[in-house]
Amino acid sequence: MEYRYENPVDKEHINVVQFGLGPIGISAAKTALSKDMIKMVGAVDINPDLSGSDLGRILENDSMKGVAAVKDIKEIFDKTHVDVVIHTTSSFVEKTFDQFKAIMEGGANIVSSTEEMFLPDLRNPKLAKELDNIAKHNNVTCLGTGVNPGFVMDTLAIVLTSMCVDVEHIHAEREVDASSRREPLQRKVGAGLSIDKFKSLAREGKLGHRGLKESIAFVAKGLGWQLDRIDESIDPIVAEDDLETKFLEIKKGETAGIKNIGTGFFDDKELIKLDLRMYVGAKNPHDTIRISGNPCLDVVINGGVAGDTATVASLVNSIPRVIKAQPGLCTMMDIALPRIFTGKSNF
Amino acid sequence: MEYRYENPVDKEHINVVQFGLGPIGISAAKTALSKDMIKMVGAVDINPDLSGSDLGRILENDSMKGVAAVKDIKEIFDKTHVDVVIHTTSSFVEKTFDQFKAIMEGGANIVSSTEEMFLPDLRNPKLAKELDNIAKHNNVTCLGTGVNPGFVMDTLAIVLTSMCVDVEHIHAEREVDASSRREPLQRKVGAGLSIDKFKSLAREGKLGHRGLKESIAFVAKGLGWQLDRIDESIDPIVAEDDLETKFLEIKKGETAGIKNIGTGFFDDKELIKLDLRMYVGAKNPHDTIRISGNPCLDVVINGGVAGDTATVASLVNSIPRVIKAQPGLCTMMDIALPRIFTGKSNF
Repeated sequence: MEYRYENPVDKEHINVVQFGLGPIGISAAKTALSKDMIKMVGAVDINPDLSGSDLGRILENDSMKGVAAVKDIKEIFDKTHVDVVIHTTSSFVEKTFDQFKAIMEGGANIVSSTEEMFLPDLRNPKLAKELDNIAKHNNVTCLGTGVNPGFVMDTLAIVLTSMCVDVEHIHAEREVDASSRREPLQRKVGAGLSIDKFKSLAREGKLGHRGLKESIAFVAKGLGWQLDRIDESIDPIVAEDDLETKFLEIKKGETAGIKNIGTGFFDDKELIKLDLRMYVGAKNPHDTIRISGNPCLDVVINGGVAGDTATVASLVNSIPRVIKAQPGLCTMMDIALPRIFTGKSNF
Repeated sequence: MEYRYENPVDKEHINVVQFGLGPIGISAAKTALSKDMIKMVGAVDINPDLSGSDLGRILENDSMKGVAAVKDIKEIFDKTHVDVVIHTTSSFVEKTFDQFKAIMEGGANIVSSTEEMFLPDLRNPKLAKELDNIAKHNNVTCLGTGVNPGFVMDTLAIVLTSMCVDVEHIHAEREVDASSRREPLQRKVGAGLSIDKFKSLAREGKLGHRGLKESIAFVAKGLGWQLDRIDESIDPIVAEDDLETKFLEIKKGETAGIKNIGTGFFDDKELIKLDLRMYVGAKNPHDTIRISGNPCLDVVINGGVAGDTATVASLVNSIPRVIKAQPGLCTMMDIALPRIFTGKSNF
């Protein structure tokens, strides 16, 4: 059986641009380059230190030698057609709106790691509507995806409910050992801060994971549940011993990481609970989803899903599906079954 | 954000017919009746003992009193528009072809538990092509789904690969305790047969699970893998003690159930292994998926997914998605994210 949606691009190659050359962006571009069907036609970074740099060096790939990163994506659009832009710059729709607009007006589809784009109308309904219009006007699709938000605490939970005739409560738990993660993540979870400093930064919104609210609202939407309240708490996990990572030291009693709990309610009844712990020295990293319903389901991913690799995977794997999706802003719920993009015959 | 596919039916109600009034069919119809948005407008069974029977009695539901099961679905089409038919009659496309044809020519979409329909062009490429044409001609969609084949050993495995940048091997293991299942399943796995009888029935193809080949081919297709060989073995699991179920007795040394192993190869390299054990007295029922790749994933559903309830769930939950899908024969890979259909606002 053939895919029934018309393939809008040349089947031989997909022209891809990497937008954002931070650690995730570089890793995504390298992964994209490993796929036979993908042709990297450029990269963008607004950092003046990076634009102009040779992509052969940045991506450690000879096929990209002589191609310079640019500051403005229009420079790439002037030269070639772009099918998909892998976008990895910021967590916030407000900050990325102009980037999305420029990309879509250039005729390219988007897969973005922007956490708020996973369910863009939750915090930014007006901007989401505008982006949806721009996407439709330019006949392209824009998808926000990732591992968290994007998969382990939301999309996967929803998919599992397809085996249930009734669902009463969803509980997802994710424990991540921050020791092995990149430095920005260790900083983001507050590792090494005093407890007081953690609390004051948390109050200012300068710490923690972005996307728990998106995950809760996404699960509710997938299940057809109306929520009237989403609560979120952020607390430090206290180091019980002195700890050390490649990047920092943590003394006993300081912050080892973060405990971020989100709950969704209707009429004071808890329907969804997401429990995210990311800290240095986590002893039992795992992802768990427990569905109370008929039947009940108790699903464990032993060791958990590795954050950075999986984020990169979710971006690159979405490339063929955004090309085939209908134009507009879309979510992981609207497009065909999430799966690996081998870059070969499953396209 | 609204669903972007035009809703082809009145949003207030979905008119549904149950085709096949065996245990799964009755259970599916009861579940469908529990959804606010679904209006059961009739049921079909080719068994003359059932046609004419009152659905109020069969479905134990007062709202269906006075509605008789019919032998020919045309009787229902003459009276009313049908949006979706839940089809639960046989495992084989050859046997169900005329039923699918009649349903689609009556203008209804189909969700079917026919195991071969999960990937219809595997064993029946010509009939699948014909059905695809009929579906497109009548502007309807036809989907084969279920728990196995349909989810635990195939769709779920594919979904999990969306977190991987590379996959080398997929191993799914399903152990089902047949003790608690309905009698036809206990008979189907050979429980209570002598080992010799089991082997001779297995040789004649009269025993065992239908769909392991479909699951393997579906996983391969989802990952873009070409297989050049699918092997399948069927062996008895021998009772180590005397066993007893509600329906039958098994003596020590007789057959407790079935071990059905399927493997997919390319160039003599094993890429996919599905290990299905269904037997009376299984001590550790579970579903496991192990993905060797980057990252590796080790996923366990403790206790496993309950077969009959989940099959019914997968059928009823697919109803809104087949209505919204594009016309034609489709698979679980082509349509929007599998999830529960609450029958309320997620439609």
